[in-house]
Amino acid sequence: MKAFLATPLDLEQGRVDLSHGAGGRAMAQLIAQLFATAFDNPFLAQGDDGARLPHCAGRLVMATDAHVVSPLFFPGGDIGSLAVHGTLNDVAVMGARPLYLSASFILEEGLPLSDLSRIVRSMAAAAQAAGVPVVTGDTKVVERGKGDGVFITTTGVGVLRDGVDVSGANAQPGDAVLVSGPIGQHGMAILAAREPLGFEASIESDSAAVHGLIAGLLDAVPATRVLRDPTRGGVAATLNEIARQSGVGIVLDEATVPVTAAVAAACELLGLDPLDLPCEGRVLVVCPEADAGRALRALRAHPLGAGAERIGEVIADKRCFVQMRTRLGGRRMIDWLAAEALPRIC
Amino acid sequence: MKAFLATPLDLEQGRVDLSHGAGGRAMAQLIAQLFATAFDNPFLAQGDDGARLPHCAGRLVMATDAHVVSPLFFPGGDIGSLAVHGTLNDVAVMGARPLYLSASFILEEGLPLSDLSRIVRSMAAAAQAAGVPVVTGDTKVVERGKGDGVFITTTGVGVLRDGVDVSGANAQPGDAVLVSGPIGQHGMAILAAREPLGFEASIESDSAAVHGLIAGLLDAVPATRVLRDPTRGGVAATLNEIARQSGVGIVLDEATVPVTAAVAAACELLGLDPLDLPCEGRVLVVCPEADAGRALRALRAHPLGAGAERIGEVIADKRCFVQMRTRLGGRRMIDWLAAEALPRIC
Repeated sequence: MKAFLATPLDLEQGRVDLSHGAGGRAMAQLIAQLFATAFDNPFLAQGDDGARLPHCAGRLVMATDAHVVSPLFFPGGDIGSLAVHGTLNDVAVMGARPLYLSASFILEEGLPLSDLSRIVRSMAAAAQAAGVPVVTGDTKVVERGKGDGVFITTTGVGVLRDGVDVSGANAQPGDAVLVSGPIGQHGMAILAAREPLGFEASIESDSAAVHGLIAGLLDAVPATRVLRDPTRGGVAATLNEIARQSGVGIVLDEATVPVTAAVAAACELLGLDPLDLPCEGRVLVVCPEADAGRALRALRAHPLGAGAERIGEVIADKRCFVQMRTRLGGRRMIDWLAAEALPRIC
Repeated sequence: MKAFLATPLDLEQGRVDLSHGAGGRAMAQLIAQLFATAFDNPFLAQGDDGARLPHCAGRLVMATDAHVVSPLFFPGGDIGSLAVHGTLNDVAVMGARPLYLSASFILEEGLPLSDLSRIVRSMAAAAQAAGVPVVTGDTKVVERGKGDGVFITTTGVGVLRDGVDVSGANAQPGDAVLVSGPIGQHGMAILAAREPLGFEASIESDSAAVHGLIAGLLDAVPATRVLRDPTRGGVAATLNEIARQSGVGIVLDEATVPVTAAVAAACELLGLDPLDLPCEGRVLVVCPEADAGRALRALRAHPLGAGAERIGEVIADKRCFVQMRTRLGGRRMIDWLAAEALPRIC
């Protein structure tokens, strides 16, 4: 790699151009000086078209997510950390331990290299904090006006925990529904980053890797039935998916659904429902009622689950309705949104 | 899924809108009616955030590629089949048997659903022909003018063959260099699809999944040292990478490098070197000289390797130069291009 270090990238003033995706010297330089340096690990350092990984015992889990969030930087994170958390969480809610990540970048010509560098370093820090290396990657460049700064697709591979069987199809009437913390922060953080909403308090994204939180929960309650991260479509869409997959109904108690005062105020101002706003560091849990107390204690024992609450229960309902008992004692339907509510939120 | 079939997508006249990526009903409909139908397999049908896969014994290999080819459709393939072949080949050239693919789509608002449907069906057909299922996926939508129709990132997971150790770092002085067929067809097919070049003959992309070809080669020559698919940057960039990784030089014989008459003519017209043009269904092979004959026979025994040739040899050279003995008896340097030659070719 020495030859490339002789002509360093200008990470302060430089910009991405089409040569950075063309397979020649400029691309090799970008890979060596930016990606390989930030993601430094022995698998990536093999320098081949993919990564050779150790022997793997167990049932594999694989999940992938494209990240197109706009803006690229927001309070509590950026597209780089989000791309790590989003996919790790998809692996973790399958009941698996995430082991490896791949990362593929689609860069728009003209993107400041300083932005790319900041994103890649944030991504590397998130991967390191999570203990999951980025073992292989790819970079393409599209012409100005054919992309939007940077899109990042990550894919995660993990190994299923023995003795655990979680799926959206496993909820049973009588089960308890829990959430690991206040909802809607990620969605509101992105909306606020797009245009000033006139609040005093800044709302930070909840973006975080929840596999440690989930490991603690599954240690305590191996009979956990469903784990889901309520991302796009928020808690409302995720619970509707679970209800449909399991062929059950779900009833929430409005008074117990955790929402921070700042998110509640912003939602009121914008006419949004916190249940529709994506989270990127929360987990929805369905478990047998008898285990609910233990599950709640296990969640609260982890820093990311300090605000965990029991928010409802699963009922028999062939129509698969998700409903909410309101503070006033009524019931309302929690539908998922038919139209787009929040494009490019993750 | 029945509820969604009641309101079918208009795959003839419809277009992608932002709701198709927003996590609500429209996205669920797109997934159920288009993706789940085309990629139909038990892993994808689990309907969770990722795929639970069978027990996997062996050393894993993981590779990822973003595909941004323009135009989306070209003679010999489209972005869908290319996205399958590109990543399967990256897994295969690691000496691994590809097992699973993930697929992540970034759609531009306004993309005709008929185009998306054609691409997804082509992708599914390529995956089925290769015997490798698309087990999990993701879809995002970006606003008009922030993407370009569709970008597809695929990630492949495979298991390393026992007794095989191939890497770009393994070439040794004295080794033979082989290629599995005529070079440059994919690159020239894309260029010709962008604007009429005034040829009589249509040039088809060589896009194909080469894992079967490689399996036959490795059965015959387990001592194979390097396998690479010469994609971006073509044979020139790929050989330069191998030379650099292995710390050796490479000398090609111009007379033996297979190029079809149509590609040669088009290159002459455009002032391009076939060595710089990407292939998407060819393999570069470095093996011990003693095995070269057997390797060539094994390649030629497979339909995708019918045009295989021995094109050069590895020499000791600390400068890691790649050179070519020309038909006139001289030598010229084969550099890789510093500037972008062919943006968005894959």
